Amino acid sequence: MGKRLGPQTVRLEKEIHVVGAAGVAGKMEGEGPLGEYFDRVVIDAMFGEDSWEKAESHFVREAMERAVEKSGHTMGDMNYILCGDLLNQCIGTTFGIKDFSIPCFGVFGACSTMGETMSLGAMLLDGGFAETVLAGASSHFCSAEKQFRFPLPLGIQRPPVSARTVTGAGAVVLSRQGEGPLIREITTGKIVDLGIKDANHMGAAMAPAAAALIAAHLRETGRQVKDYDVIATGDLGHIGRELAIKLLKQEGFLADERYTDCGMLIFDRTRQDVHAGGSGCACSALTFASYFYPRLCRGEIRRMLFVPTGALLSTTSVQQGLSIPGIAHGIVLESGREE
Amino acid sequence: MGKRLGPQTVRLEKEIHVVGAAGVAGKMEGEGPLGEYFDRVVIDAMFGEDSWEKAESHFVREAMERAVEKSGHTMGDMNYILCGDLLNQCIGTTFGIKDFSIPCFGVFGACSTMGETMSLGAMLLDGGFAETVLAGASSHFCSAEKQFRFPLPLGIQRPPVSARTVTGAGAVVLSRQGEGPLIREITTGKIVDLGIKDANHMGAAMAPAAAALIAAHLRETGRQVKDYDVIATGDLGHIGRELAIKLLKQEGFLADERYTDCGMLIFDRTRQDVHAGGSGCACSALTFASYFYPRLCRGEIRRMLFVPTGALLSTTSVQQGLSIPGIAHGIVLESGREE
Repeated sequence: MGKRLGPQTVRLEKEIHVVGAAGVAGKMEGEGPLGEYFDRVVIDAMFGEDSWEKAESHFVREAMERAVEKSGHTMGDMNYILCGDLLNQCIGTTFGIKDFSIPCFGVFGACSTMGETMSLGAMLLDGGFAETVLAGASSHFCSAEKQFRFPLPLGIQRPPVSARTVTGAGAVVLSRQGEGPLIREITTGKIVDLGIKDANHMGAAMAPAAAALIAAHLRETGRQVKDYDVIATGDLGHIGRELAIKLLKQEGFLADERYTDCGMLIFDRTRQDVHAGGSGCACSALTFASYFYPRLCRGEIRRMLFVPTGALLSTTSVQQGLSIPGIAHGIVLESGREE
Repeated sequence: MGKRLGPQTVRLEKEIHVVGAAGVAGKMEGEGPLGEYFDRVVIDAMFGEDSWEKAESHFVREAMERAVEKSGHTMGDMNYILCGDLLNQCIGTTFGIKDFSIPCFGVFGACSTMGETMSLGAMLLDGGFAETVLAGASSHFCSAEKQFRFPLPLGIQRPPVSARTVTGAGAVVLSRQGEGPLIREITTGKIVDLGIKDANHMGAAMAPAAAALIAAHLRETGRQVKDYDVIATGDLGHIGRELAIKLLKQEGFLADERYTDCGMLIFDRTRQDVHAGGSGCACSALTFASYFYPRLCRGEIRRMLFVPTGALLSTTSVQQGLSIPGIAHGIVLESGREE
């Protein structure tokens, strides 16, 4: 069991490359700081469909097609698709991928989904079960608000601690062949529940899981924060990131400016009405696929710890007074380029 | 890539054993033909909780604890938990497993979930990422009816083609060490959509995916139906099984009495009001864990193809007029005992 570095972390033996990535984003994401990096910005929230849910599936489909095309492969080369989303029974995924006719595994990890699909995909490759795997995740502001919160036309005022669900989808092609950044280690999250019950305060619900994951990862790999050019959580936002830094300090790790959060990067809260930042499965999926991945390819980032974060709630669990457990999954990527 | 037998099937290289299994079932399941085999039958639909959703989590927790105990392990030996359910955002799983504090992957495959968790778990073991993995799935008649159909007190009459969601949870412990039936091959399903739109007729929605999976499996392994003592789909029920047999015949495979369906086994429709049979994630999970698994252990079944089946719908997708795509995942188990 040489692959296991500790209770939560495994090291891959083979060279598993991210050979392609694509992000297709909504209008507000396109107007944000990362706008220029997305493969496509879709102004129409309906994406030409007649419902927001079908639009979300359209984002999934297009991000996957673009990632495959950019990898130099065809869809038929994909041995497995792994994908998930926030909608009830993951219909964003189902109707996004169904016509590809590829063996598939649906996953649910709330907003940590991209961490799950990339982790499982990389392990299927390293284990010798596949040559090439397609992994993705999606979310949509309108379908998420409609399902989890209030009808959009009500115009309910959101509290300052709330985040804005990112509209879009990100997808990556992982392969045992070819060129591109390497997935080196995978640290799989445990569910962490500190009893947070405010469904508008996801950052607080997820920060403990994120801090626990990063601390476990550093302990099990014997590394420090300074061994990474970037550590990026998924969607804690500004408030959640501050909490995670405090919790990491209690664990003995000093998280400096190397530690950022995709929810802070994808929107500019000084000029966009997003409160604590971005959230949703697409927040980390898009930011990784469109912003971090090209920087890894160019060697601007030599090693990063990517930590998509999820809040494991439903409207039913919240209405029944249950807490909001959090989870986070960690993936180490290296540029594979010499300095 | 010696592990890949074909586009959908892989063969495991290591001896991956099912070293323990447990099923905890509801009252009506306990009164059915498999009643005597369950580890525990819980008469109270609330399982001592104050909601059906919390009860479902209780089923998950107890099935997992019992499976681990029966395997001779402790919960701390589990490297990963893989689990899923039908509830929105998989809260049956989240609140069932959160206090175990084990690295976990949530999956969503509708009623095919047990196929996903066992497939991924076995591949993580064969790939060398774990020594021991816990895989499970759950469903609950009351939480499912409430979420997908009508409030129970309305007493809506169900059409004859409908099935009854099974209440309970099944769990298995998979390991690279120890004794027990072996997982040999895994055939991963593609989504199949023939345009069925009747949300009361799940058997028809899933039969094409089940038949396609079984046909692909037989082609890729070069086997025939007679090479199995049992082929068991998850929850097609009586009508869905007949459809699957017809579709298999079109593919050139004659499915005889070796082919059964967990949804037909778990209830006796001549004396229980279940219409087409049982359904839900727990239908195949419970039937495998409590009925097939002991028979594999005793060598009464030498080789079986276990095919959990899922209908990938949500209330939103149905209300928006979308079809109900199906999926099925296949797992070959062998007793590992000489004749």
